[in-house]
Amino acid sequence: MTFNDPIDRRGTHSSKWDKMETLFGVSPDDGLAMWTADSDYPTAPCVIEAVQRAAAHGAFGYVWEYPEYLAAIQWWMKTRHRWEIDTDWILTTQGLGNAIALCLDVFSDPGDGAVIFTPVYHEFAMKIRKSGREVVECPLVRGQNTYVLDLEDAQNRLTGNEKLLIWSSPQNPSGRIWTREELRAIGAFAARNGLILVCDEIHHDLIMPGNSFLPMDLASPETRASTVFLTAASKTFNIAGLRTGNMIIPDPDLRAAIRARLRALDYSPNSLGMMMIEAAYSPAGAEWADAQNRHLDGNRHLFDETVNAIPGLWSMPLQATYLAWVDFSGTGLTDPEIETRLRENARIATSPGPGFGTGGERFQRFNLATQRYRVEEACTRLRAAFSDLH
Amino acid sequence: MTFNDPIDRRGTHSSKWDKMETLFGVSPDDGLAMWTADSDYPTAPCVIEAVQRAAAHGAFGYVWEYPEYLAAIQWWMKTRHRWEIDTDWILTTQGLGNAIALCLDVFSDPGDGAVIFTPVYHEFAMKIRKSGREVVECPLVRGQNTYVLDLEDAQNRLTGNEKLLIWSSPQNPSGRIWTREELRAIGAFAARNGLILVCDEIHHDLIMPGNSFLPMDLASPETRASTVFLTAASKTFNIAGLRTGNMIIPDPDLRAAIRARLRALDYSPNSLGMMMIEAAYSPAGAEWADAQNRHLDGNRHLFDETVNAIPGLWSMPLQATYLAWVDFSGTGLTDPEIETRLRENARIATSPGPGFGTGGERFQRFNLATQRYRVEEACTRLRAAFSDLH
Repeated sequence: MTFNDPIDRRGTHSSKWDKMETLFGVSPDDGLAMWTADSDYPTAPCVIEAVQRAAAHGAFGYVWEYPEYLAAIQWWMKTRHRWEIDTDWILTTQGLGNAIALCLDVFSDPGDGAVIFTPVYHEFAMKIRKSGREVVECPLVRGQNTYVLDLEDAQNRLTGNEKLLIWSSPQNPSGRIWTREELRAIGAFAARNGLILVCDEIHHDLIMPGNSFLPMDLASPETRASTVFLTAASKTFNIAGLRTGNMIIPDPDLRAAIRARLRALDYSPNSLGMMMIEAAYSPAGAEWADAQNRHLDGNRHLFDETVNAIPGLWSMPLQATYLAWVDFSGTGLTDPEIETRLRENARIATSPGPGFGTGGERFQRFNLATQRYRVEEACTRLRAAFSDLH
Repeated sequence: MTFNDPIDRRGTHSSKWDKMETLFGVSPDDGLAMWTADSDYPTAPCVIEAVQRAAAHGAFGYVWEYPEYLAAIQWWMKTRHRWEIDTDWILTTQGLGNAIALCLDVFSDPGDGAVIFTPVYHEFAMKIRKSGREVVECPLVRGQNTYVLDLEDAQNRLTGNEKLLIWSSPQNPSGRIWTREELRAIGAFAARNGLILVCDEIHHDLIMPGNSFLPMDLASPETRASTVFLTAASKTFNIAGLRTGNMIIPDPDLRAAIRARLRALDYSPNSLGMMMIEAAYSPAGAEWADAQNRHLDGNRHLFDETVNAIPGLWSMPLQATYLAWVDFSGTGLTDPEIETRLRENARIATSPGPGFGTGGERFQRFNLATQRYRVEEACTRLRAAFSDLH
């Protein structure tokens, strides 16, 4: 299969397709699901083959240790990101959200603050609130074509009660790849304020051609001892349903604290998740991921050209991720008006910007990890739904 | 495939086979793995087909809600166990051990006690200790051919500091099915002492022909409001690697407390685990489970006859589970001597009795969920290793 072959995800328990009618009033029969961050095409053939091999064997008993899984992660970080890690540093969780929740649980108490730079992945604030901690929002600033940091302003927003900084790199929803200087500045900011830095690098493989990703640990090695790195194959390989992600924690004390909690809660990763990731983090997986990036690059160029030609709309240029962040503020419409046109006229389910925190007002996030023909259809519908405004 | 077709689990990340050399000094090349409680044959064809269907679809994205999964659990409890449950009562965890750990976390504080009746599944005490709680052991008493309760003795062992009672039904390792009177007595004992009853019914489908299982909730409906029921398809269908089990909590307050913790930790079940369980909890799965019980019944009759013919050895008659609990005390050997003969002479990896707590001394637990020829081989080896003693 190619990235453009039609696929019908209706009735496959896909929350992106099966929940859109309930949540957005957009029918999956004639609507486009561009919200939840998973992909509409199958994962890499090498990953599917791993599942088929497991099915052919047929015994799905206990798997406790899996050194080949850890070695595959180590190999991927080294060959794809020039990041050398020990396999001992890896702790497997149920994914990134679960890993953030564990960091909040272990490194802070109810009532403590956790810092986020908004607009940012809406689940950061949700996890903080669900765990009874306080969200401390530091707004990003609109620079030329993207967001930049204002750490002086951020410093003024801290109360001294903060324990963690949850950071997104590459940034969701803007698709920004942070520079070495910015990463060093964030590391220093966290260190200066005694914050554990929880660094979400889940989109690190989804890099648009012509850009390159710099891992936080390479940019800011001096803050390694207070940093928890979060990675996963789930976005890159469309296997989020397997609920398997990794914390990479070089510091032995931070690692011991998380490990003790994982043991007390009797966490253990599921076998098929690990088998699929082992298969993904391979030369064949790398080749597939490169091809996917070329496909996504084509999608986003098409999408951006169309959207930017609609007066009042502007799509932030992506350096990474498959998530287009579209500013509707030039239309003069309110958020409810924007949503009504998107849902009722264009029949597209998107992730509403206000959920991403301060700065997300009048934005919508569009998931472009789909067939080209669906992106084309979205473009046609957006043009029809918003071109009457100027 | 039948339950007797040869299968090679070496090199498939099976901890039962791949870890036996490290832990027991028994090579998987000529040894028999009869310890970890999973099965050596493939799961039901309907479960394998569910995995194959998912592989053919190929997109493994987010699955949030899965009403068919919950309906399948409800159907199974009703048709197989005459137990009527609401789908709202079901909370999915990473399995039984994780569920027990969550109960300890939510319903007790470090230093509190948790009551177990020993010998019992070794993970109960391990979970209690790992969470910083105190193990309060109440020994079961040897009755005719099995264990019985001595609740007067148990009452005297409580300090008043206990918060939970973790109960195994059918009982692991003895294979005992508790009677209505015993279940009512345990329910009353828990209620009288203000204990949350955590009732592990994971082996409820593995019932030897001629016996029938009675769910705690049917025997003791008046203690439902303080009981957490734990079930899973993992033993019945050999899918423990998928790390998916269910808490069934009729009481809204207990359920809300666990649910809040699951949400704060951002738990969510993996898609393939749920798809496999939905497929297992079906008429085809039920037919396969019945056939498996007949196979296990044949295995245990063969095993018991051989073992009981060896002077000094005695295998407790199973009513349920595939776990034979063998008393070696008649040999006059010490635990280390028993283990040396098992590992070095018979080359069988078993679960040592002392790990199951007081009363487990000079016992070994044998997993019989394997091919008949492997049980025959174990019998031959046991006869050779222990027949010189009388």
